[in-house]
Amino acid sequence: MENSKMSDKNEMKRIYVFDTTLRDGEQSPGCTMNLKDKLLVAEHLEDLRVDVIEAGFAIASKGDLESVQAISQLVKNASVASLCRALTGDIDCAWDAVKGAVRPRIHTFIATSPIHMEYKLKMQPDVVYQRAVDMVRYARNLCDDIEFSLEDCSRSERPFIYRVVEGVIAAGASTVNIPDTVGYAVPEEFGQLVADIRANVPNIDQARIAVHCHNDLGLAAANSLAAIRAGAEQIECTVNGIGERAGNTALEEVLMAMETRKAYYQAYTNVDTTKIYSASRCVVNVTGSRVQANKAIVGENAFAHESGIHQHGMLANPLTYEIMTPESIGLPSNKMVLGKHSGKHAFESRLEDLGFNFDQDRIKELFGKFKDLADRKKLVGDADIEALAYDLQTMVATGAKLDRFNTTASNAITPVSTVRLVVDGQKIEEVAIGDGPISASFAAINSILGVQVSLESFELSAITGGSDAQSEAVVRVRNDARTYHGRGVSTDIIEASILAYLQAVNVFTSEQTRKTNAANAANAAKP
Amino acid sequence: MENSKMSDKNEMKRIYVFDTTLRDGEQSPGCTMNLKDKLLVAEHLEDLRVDVIEAGFAIASKGDLESVQAISQLVKNASVASLCRALTGDIDCAWDAVKGAVRPRIHTFIATSPIHMEYKLKMQPDVVYQRAVDMVRYARNLCDDIEFSLEDCSRSERPFIYRVVEGVIAAGASTVNIPDTVGYAVPEEFGQLVADIRANVPNIDQARIAVHCHNDLGLAAANSLAAIRAGAEQIECTVNGIGERAGNTALEEVLMAMETRKAYYQAYTNVDTTKIYSASRCVVNVTGSRVQANKAIVGENAFAHESGIHQHGMLANPLTYEIMTPESIGLPSNKMVLGKHSGKHAFESRLEDLGFNFDQDRIKELFGKFKDLADRKKLVGDADIEALAYDLQTMVATGAKLDRFNTTASNAITPVSTVRLVVDGQKIEEVAIGDGPISASFAAINSILGVQVSLESFELSAITGGSDAQSEAVVRVRNDARTYHGRGVSTDIIEASILAYLQAVNVFTSEQTRKTNAANAANAAKP
Repeated sequence: MENSKMSDKNEMKRIYVFDTTLRDGEQSPGCTMNLKDKLLVAEHLEDLRVDVIEAGFAIASKGDLESVQAISQLVKNASVASLCRALTGDIDCAWDAVKGAVRPRIHTFIATSPIHMEYKLKMQPDVVYQRAVDMVRYARNLCDDIEFSLEDCSRSERPFIYRVVEGVIAAGASTVNIPDTVGYAVPEEFGQLVADIRANVPNIDQARIAVHCHNDLGLAAANSLAAIRAGAEQIECTVNGIGERAGNTALEEVLMAMETRKAYYQAYTNVDTTKIYSASRCVVNVTGSRVQANKAIVGENAFAHESGIHQHGMLANPLTYEIMTPESIGLPSNKMVLGKHSGKHAFESRLEDLGFNFDQDRIKELFGKFKDLADRKKLVGDADIEALAYDLQTMVATGAKLDRFNTTASNAITPVSTVRLVVDGQKIEEVAIGDGPISASFAAINSILGVQVSLESFELSAITGGSDAQSEAVVRVRNDARTYHGRGVSTDIIEASILAYLQAVNVFTSEQTRKTNAANAANAAKP
Repeated sequence: MENSKMSDKNEMKRIYVFDTTLRDGEQSPGCTMNLKDKLLVAEHLEDLRVDVIEAGFAIASKGDLESVQAISQLVKNASVASLCRALTGDIDCAWDAVKGAVRPRIHTFIATSPIHMEYKLKMQPDVVYQRAVDMVRYARNLCDDIEFSLEDCSRSERPFIYRVVEGVIAAGASTVNIPDTVGYAVPEEFGQLVADIRANVPNIDQARIAVHCHNDLGLAAANSLAAIRAGAEQIECTVNGIGERAGNTALEEVLMAMETRKAYYQAYTNVDTTKIYSASRCVVNVTGSRVQANKAIVGENAFAHESGIHQHGMLANPLTYEIMTPESIGLPSNKMVLGKHSGKHAFESRLEDLGFNFDQDRIKELFGKFKDLADRKKLVGDADIEALAYDLQTMVATGAKLDRFNTTASNAITPVSTVRLVVDGQKIEEVAIGDGPISASFAAINSILGVQVSLESFELSAITGGSDAQSEAVVRVRNDARTYHGRGVSTDIIEASILAYLQAVNVFTSEQTRKTNAANAANAAKP
């Protein structure tokens, strides 16, 4: 509401948006994504027009390296970065991961706080300084675009911060990131830190200052905004604020605060805020990590007005209680409901409204599923269509498929489930009992496939209201240190659960097969 | 970690904590609580030692009035407030609701922003001013402790704010609240507003300034903290930040920021932060409104360290990545697991660790349920015990009870469920089909009880990992404008769902019965 007089962007400061959903977000508990998931998120980030996509931490695993490479191939507009420690091996690996990108970036870091240097790095400050400078120089010989982060900067000492920042800029870093790694900073103080760096580092005008905040005290968005006011030009964030512990700065909060309070911040970004909602839904769907109802901007209630007083005001003038419109984040305004008589054109246009861009083959496939669903339930809403679309996008094509099942749950007899799967073209059927119909069904599947995974979490919810609602099940299974998740959608919660479990297990077994094949190939190649 | 040198509280500013979980929180979509729920939350707020409990909006409904009265009777230490518009009828009702409290407070408000005065109130500023002053004087004749709020204050004009604040203080308000009703403020600006009020209102030293922030831009905690720095002495907040739209300032965030950064804020409260975790769990359990995994302070991941780099640092020295301990919010540190051989003493002590205070009768009842559960699953964890305890605390004693059920789910035949309930001592059995086992079971129950409610939402999750996990179902049903929720816990998801649905329906029918009885009594009393 403030932007009427502010149409001239030239007077305002351009802020660059660095999204780390695929790196800092992905490494948080329960947010692990497979390659297909990551590519889908990367597409949404391109749609959002973020400036930099941090695609992973290439040295962490072979899977991370491969996914950063794949994202580098996919992304056409944003820069693609890989994180790496300040070590030549890490940097080489990061370069290997991003060198195929249109705009590759290497992002290297070392901790600069007394506590991190003493206890974690066990290195003297002089050694840390030299390592930082040497490694930026090393990286700069590989890549034109180098970002350097001072890990735990908000708890580092000013003179050392100034020295390191000056050194890495001289060595070729074009972005210097000031992370509040542990979420300890408060806004005025964090803004002052950025202002002090600008005032005390002689060559600061040769680089952009970035900030990377964590939400441990609920202050990540406020700290990032205070930094913008103090002169930071790059904001690091994640969709839905996912990330370690309480997560990172939420992309949607910092962007909508800048948008809603444009006159105050005198800043703009290149992001298309109308893509926020679909990006948020995508991250929820591929990670299975939900946002709470009262999450700012993207929560289910963020634009809901329940109390009588508020509703009265909203009817008189929406601005009484609404500082931004649902449309500004791309929340579909009209709640269109389709049914069995809806045609392909209406369905296709609704898919587009919801932020999906499919080719005709997929639309056709999806339309078939929509018709099946419309036969089972009278009214098909946006959430139903979204669920079907994500089901198609994230489904693992290979692996066992459900043929049929029959499950009995009772408090008088022991629950029992008979499941028949199609595995490599063969129908295999098993029966098992359990403490409930779900554990019985999963036991039957384990017995067919001979897998050993433990159930880490299981969630189920109705996508829409009404007793004929579709339910969505999200299952997470663990094998050693890795977790795998799957989702399934059905009007029957047992079927949704079986589909979700099968998907998780299929991801697990396909990874196992890939590993075995790679090991066999490596052995075969030995002299 | 900053408080070592700060032991002298006398040098620091005392901040009063005003909790509105039961008013602003309760009026948000999906957070409706019944009387039993509200009393349970009020007990937790007393344990937390908040200074003021806003218990409801007494004029809103008969149920609201009764629950504010009941909370006024229960609470011994905190002040108990009821909200009311600046109207004599509202104020009389509020006084009626709180006059039985040890420390009653009337909280009245009127909007002061141009947009609210013009479009919602349709009143001239002079009329608004006079109404505010008159109504504070009216309330002050009833009650010693009056709080006045300038609704939408952050979008109001300075001279009018000063005039109204001065007027209501002169009329007897001892607390003046500055709400950021629409979540539009940003920290520096909001702090400045508080500072300006202090500088420009002559009699401001005769009252406390309170702030009440909303989280629409993700800035509620930061705005509240900026106000404390500028001289506000009362913070209004809710547990888990529940509330209209994106919610209110989260109690846990603003308190832990003040605690963790004590030297910076130079402020303290009377709150016992070690009760935060159990209060948070209580609100999740009674509302069914969950917090996301990465919610600051109380999210499941808030104290989790997943990445290799972080784990390495944590082992070397926890302070590398931890700015507050899990113990400081009362998160049970040891994950004790009980089993079928655990004795009553171990069980009782674990209940206490988890924040429950039950009398011996209830402990005995709960111990019996624990033994039943331990027979069904090998290891009983904290989450299992918590689920049992909340089941007991929030269960509606009256109404239909589940006797037995038998449900078949399949993708080859139509799902069918046979349910037998005990209603007023009679066993009644019905069978129904549905799109899935849940809709079939609910249809059978509807047919037994003859109720007409629509299913609003349905969520189910495993409380712990493993295939023998207990599942918790949360069901919300709607009848006209009111929603009712129920929860059920079982190792069988169908049973958990049936129990949850029965509870919601029992709450609904008991309210219907109460209304019918009241109407009959009123008719009978007519001359």
